[in-house]
Amino acid sequence: MENTHNFYMPKTNLAGVGAIKDLPNELMPLKLNKALIVTDKNIISLGYVENVEKILKALFISYDIFDGVVHTNPTVSFVEDGLKYFPNKLNILKRDYDFLISIGGGTNHDCAKAIATVVTNGNSIIDYEGWNKVTKPMLPTICINTTGGSGAEVTMFAIIKDNSRKVKMTIGSPKMMPSISVNEPLFHITMPKELTAGTGIDVITQAIESYICTEASPITDALALKALKVAWKYLPRAYENGNDMEAREKMMFANMMAGMTLNNAGLGYVHALSHQLGGFYNGYHGNYNANLLPYVLEFNAVSVPEERIFKIAEAMDIQARSKSQCVDKIMTALKQLFSDLETPSGLKEMGVQEDDIEQLSQNALKDIIALVNPRQGTVEDIMNIFKAAM
Amino acid sequence: MENTHNFYMPKTNLAGVGAIKDLPNELMPLKLNKALIVTDKNIISLGYVENVEKILKALFISYDIFDGVVHTNPTVSFVEDGLKYFPNKLNILKRDYDFLISIGGGTNHDCAKAIATVVTNGNSIIDYEGWNKVTKPMLPTICINTTGGSGAEVTMFAIIKDNSRKVKMTIGSPKMMPSISVNEPLFHITMPKELTAGTGIDVITQAIESYICTEASPITDALALKALKVAWKYLPRAYENGNDMEAREKMMFANMMAGMTLNNAGLGYVHALSHQLGGFYNGYHGNYNANLLPYVLEFNAVSVPEERIFKIAEAMDIQARSKSQCVDKIMTALKQLFSDLETPSGLKEMGVQEDDIEQLSQNALKDIIALVNPRQGTVEDIMNIFKAAM
Repeated sequence: MENTHNFYMPKTNLAGVGAIKDLPNELMPLKLNKALIVTDKNIISLGYVENVEKILKALFISYDIFDGVVHTNPTVSFVEDGLKYFPNKLNILKRDYDFLISIGGGTNHDCAKAIATVVTNGNSIIDYEGWNKVTKPMLPTICINTTGGSGAEVTMFAIIKDNSRKVKMTIGSPKMMPSISVNEPLFHITMPKELTAGTGIDVITQAIESYICTEASPITDALALKALKVAWKYLPRAYENGNDMEAREKMMFANMMAGMTLNNAGLGYVHALSHQLGGFYNGYHGNYNANLLPYVLEFNAVSVPEERIFKIAEAMDIQARSKSQCVDKIMTALKQLFSDLETPSGLKEMGVQEDDIEQLSQNALKDIIALVNPRQGTVEDIMNIFKAAM
Repeated sequence: MENTHNFYMPKTNLAGVGAIKDLPNELMPLKLNKALIVTDKNIISLGYVENVEKILKALFISYDIFDGVVHTNPTVSFVEDGLKYFPNKLNILKRDYDFLISIGGGTNHDCAKAIATVVTNGNSIIDYEGWNKVTKPMLPTICINTTGGSGAEVTMFAIIKDNSRKVKMTIGSPKMMPSISVNEPLFHITMPKELTAGTGIDVITQAIESYICTEASPITDALALKALKVAWKYLPRAYENGNDMEAREKMMFANMMAGMTLNNAGLGYVHALSHQLGGFYNGYHGNYNANLLPYVLEFNAVSVPEERIFKIAEAMDIQARSKSQCVDKIMTALKQLFSDLETPSGLKEMGVQEDDIEQLSQNALKDIIALVNPRQGTVEDIMNIFKAAM
């Protein structure tokens, strides 16, 4: 009986204050000639791209900048715009760029991974929706991360929105693993409050979801609980004072650990549902998660071993006498935190329409991320979760 | 003020029952032509090499087998014997092999990493002793692991014995990271009792040392404590009954986590001292560790925060009221376990000579692994630890 828990991550992960200074050392032996930088105008205005340009110039690596990523959600059209930089796309001998560098948060990394995948595999990114549809390794991609959550810089997934179907596609393959991730906390301090909250909530959601999902292993368990514990303690501090370097650094580690965890265990219904909301509307992913997490946890609880519920509570400094009391207290604590972080309360406030719920629920069950949720539900179950979160 | 905690590991880590069956999928897109298998006669007789040969044949990858590794410690001469397979060593255009595959435990992996490093960097492995002396990436190396401890299949270190100086050299560099690690528990069940004990003790030692060393990070903390917790619970079971698949699988995860941890945080005096014993004599690394660990922990305790001592105790199911009581109880529990595992009690029993202790102590302080120990000692301090462990 096979029971594999393969563990994938970038070979090189530069992390901590000063990490960006280690990048030249990593790039040098790779003997690269030309990079495409994938980023957005805001990241350029913050000066982070200039920082990376200096490194490339010093190494005599030429580059172009694609700054066409627009937040909050990466779409197929951004990927196609990026692909215009590759007129010789599939011709290995005439490759336009040796590698990609994404600078920004999850949206930019996902966009870069999608571009890098199509460059070597051809066709359209839509053709690779699902798990393991990619056959050739993507063009080498370096992800320089500027946010405190998404984990995209260490994952083999890209979540790309297909506007024509109003669906956020999950595209995942070990062939989509970034070569190098960089987490420089000095690049995290410019996150505005709303982004600190949203990305931090994503870390908490990822940690909880992957800890209780069906593909968890001892390695992902250790990382998930630590990510939750660290984020639970330091997210409020990072939110209160964006210049609190200790809190920023701790959130950076929490983000990396949640990324390592979700990459190898998977997620669950919060993300499966949240992706659909991102497909239909255009709100912040973290805020959708905040509103869904308590109710998905309530739905899942019956299928999660008591010990795991208590471990989640422990990481959140919650004591309880019974499993059901534990679930209640976790839900209350989550709602309190999300309220402290000034998250919109209720999906209705975020513009979700009652009439869309049935379609959203049908789509959610098609997301590959739903497969590892600890309890499998019907369309009606999913609709009830959406309704509770309104 | 820089404070980096870069995290390195193989991009691909196949793990769990059936993991070996995933290897062809990983090899296929790499388009490799010729492999050198680095192994020993015992591993060949167990049939594991044949298993890998079948995979290579199916992919039309030709190969040769270097079976000249002899246990218990890898030496410079084995590395040189392996290098004889590379008459065109530094000539990239005439490279003799595309990649190496080591099959076995830490000794074989370290030997393969050393060979792969000299093939691309030239000179002798002795020239790369220390940290980060390697300038070019080693030849791609795949480590197929058959033991429950050493972590070498996921680390960027090779520990090679230089008989001329009676020293075990530590050679480490991010350029020495294996490309793929494979941990197939079905390959672990043939470990004899003594090896199960020795490698399992190594996991426990690595976990404790890296948890209290100066380069620990939240990521390595999470992995170290989990490795300790899992090994503490399952090592006695794996020792009692080598066919207990659950115990073997859990020890496999503990081994991987300890490897990930030591690779990125480092170790400490137990390993710095143990390496010297391996250099002077030829006993099992794990047995040296067993005899040193309690006394190094006692020496270090004053420099380790109380909270960390209690966390170690918690992972070992030990309750205590004060820090000093905690240290005592941990030492007692470790000694009891090592006695249950029928480890030689005392270094004297293992053939260590009183007269060698001064030289051993001087050498230990030169090992780069000593630098991250939480408390720095004098030669006399080290001599006292050796004497206590006699």
